[in-house]
Amino acid sequence: MNFFDLLDLLGTIAFATSGALVAINKKLDPFGVFMVAFVTALGGGTLRDVLIGKEPVGWMLETYYVFTIIATTIVTIVIRNHIKYLSKSLFLFDTIGLGIFTITGTQIGVESNFNPIISIALGIITASFGGVIRDILCTQIPVIFRKEIYATAAFIGSITFLILNKFDLPINMIYVITTSIVIVIRIIAVKFHLSLPTFYTKE
Amino acid sequence: MNFFDLLDLLGTIAFATSGALVAINKKLDPFGVFMVAFVTALGGGTLRDVLIGKEPVGWMLETYYVFTIIATTIVTIVIRNHIKYLSKSLFLFDTIGLGIFTITGTQIGVESNFNPIISIALGIITASFGGVIRDILCTQIPVIFRKEIYATAAFIGSITFLILNKFDLPINMIYVITTSIVIVIRIIAVKFHLSLPTFYTKE
Amino acid sequence: MNFFDLLDLLGTIAFATSGALVAINKKLDPFGVFMVAFVTALGGGTLRDVLIGKEPVGWMLETYYVFTIIATTIVTIVIRNHIKYLSKSLFLFDTIGLGIFTITGTQIGVESNFNPIISIALGIITASFGGVIRDILCTQIPVIFRKEIYATAAFIGSITFLILNKFDLPINMIYVITTSIVIVIRIIAVKFHLSLPTFYTKE
Repeated sequence: MNFFDLLDLLGTIAFATSGALVAINKKLDPFGVFMVAFVTALGGGTLRDVLIGKEPVGWMLETYYVFTIIATTIVTIVIRNHIKYLSKSLFLFDTIGLGIFTITGTQIGVESNFNPIISIALGIITASFGGVIRDILCTQIPVIFRKEIYATAAFIGSITFLILNKFDLPINMIYVITTSIVIVIRIIAVKFHLSLPTFYTKE
Repeated sequence: MNFFDLLDLLGTIAFATSGALVAINKKLDPFGVFMVAFVTALGGGTLRDVLIGKEPVGWMLETYYVFTIIATTIVTIVIRNHIKYLSKSLFLFDTIGLGIFTITGTQIGVESNFNPIISIALGIITASFGGVIRDILCTQIPVIFRKEIYATAAFIGSITFLILNKFDLPINMIYVITTSIVIVIRIIAVKFHLSLPTFYTKE
Repeated sequence: MNFFDLLDLLGTIAFATSGALVAINKKLDPFGVFMVAFVTALGGGTLRDVLIGKEPVGWMLETYYVFTIIATTIVTIVIRNHIKYLSKSLFLFDTIGLGIFTITGTQIGVESNFNPIISIALGIITASFGGVIRDILCTQIPVIFRKEIYATAAFIGSITFLILNKFDLPINMIYVITTSIVIVIRIIAVKFHLSLPTFYTKE
């Protein structure tokens, strides 16, 4: 397992945790908690693989994804009472997953020789789709549509990745830097209540 | 048409009926009723085919699926006034569809030589996705997230199928037994208000 | 770029505009507006391509789709204050998109030698899926399930396309005629409050 696969697995754990936390909070039974963790963690990568025609999709061939999500679900259920700040924990795991999947998604676009704008789109789709399904299934307002900067952070990280990729830097260093950029931007945005302006027009 | 195809068609009819009943109850027009019946009946199998890379997806090549759903929709609309217990009928058709599609989905995973845990996932996805879309489109709480045992029944049926498959039994008998197991578990669970424990933690 | 591609691009612009208008009205930030415009415009074609196994899906290879949606989003945001009748504008763009994508979707089914009923299904799916995701993401009742004639107009246009296709007419003329049929049917239906009967049965 190389660094890229390890990073992807960390993103899977982060998103699975975020899904499990939301599901526990919605009073789902253990199986429901697992299913929400599953679609949150694998939803984005599944859509990405389907869009580019990589089928069977990744997690069907690498079974360690499913076992990782089972383990993550169990651990989350066990330690749930020790999680003092649910919404902060949820935010943190969601943000780590966002940062990692933005970059792994963009990298897969680059590897597949897509146009840069398409690689950016793949990064954002991979990073945000799992959370969107999680929120639709649990009837919450999808996170990308709330006021917090979300997809915008992914967009900046993705474009930075493409730029750094042009230089002769170690690829693992680029992964770490750009993933951190996404995470830091989102944390700062939420901490200081930064958001982009909106354009509501009364009818 | 062998027994497997026949079973798959029966599952299609059951889910189409459940979709049509929900849509009629939501006061949709005939076309809307057909569309909900369509996505409920074919949604799970479509996602399964896309995940494993079987494209065009099944129902695009076997047109009898579409004609069966059209016929099922018409019949359901015609006999709607003779259905005395809507929620019980809906539950029954949904449960029959769940039982059948769990097993056909798992079998397709086995045939495609996926790891057993992936075959189980395919069974559950095939069986539950149609109902999830039906409920999202009709703005109901998705059935798999209600208190009733749903995906858990599919899980038990799927794993039983994999075990029985190891023995030298006629495959059609295994289909019937395992489908029945899913259906019976769910009926018992609902009748006796059985459900798995939940883990809600106040923040 | 032939007439078919031009038509498809016009449909993309129409649906992107409808998505942007809904998103602006929901007070999303510019990135959110773009994302809703994106999934509304490309959702139907993406699902169609996935169903028939055309992967990578169309917009990943033809980057002008993404740039067109970016431009459409910007223009819609800029001129939003000059749009006096939001709901009428929204209806108009949605209807133009519906008319165009019904026909391009059906034509792709015909080209791929699917059975006519499958080509009709592809037309309706291509035309309506983008609007359905837009409405689910923005927590509105999906347009195809409202009282207005929507999928029914697509169905009539699609079947007319298949019939005219049998005659020795210029294909571009058939595109224009059948697209117009869908648009006119829907406008008339909404203007005169025409709708199909429903079959609600009290339990």
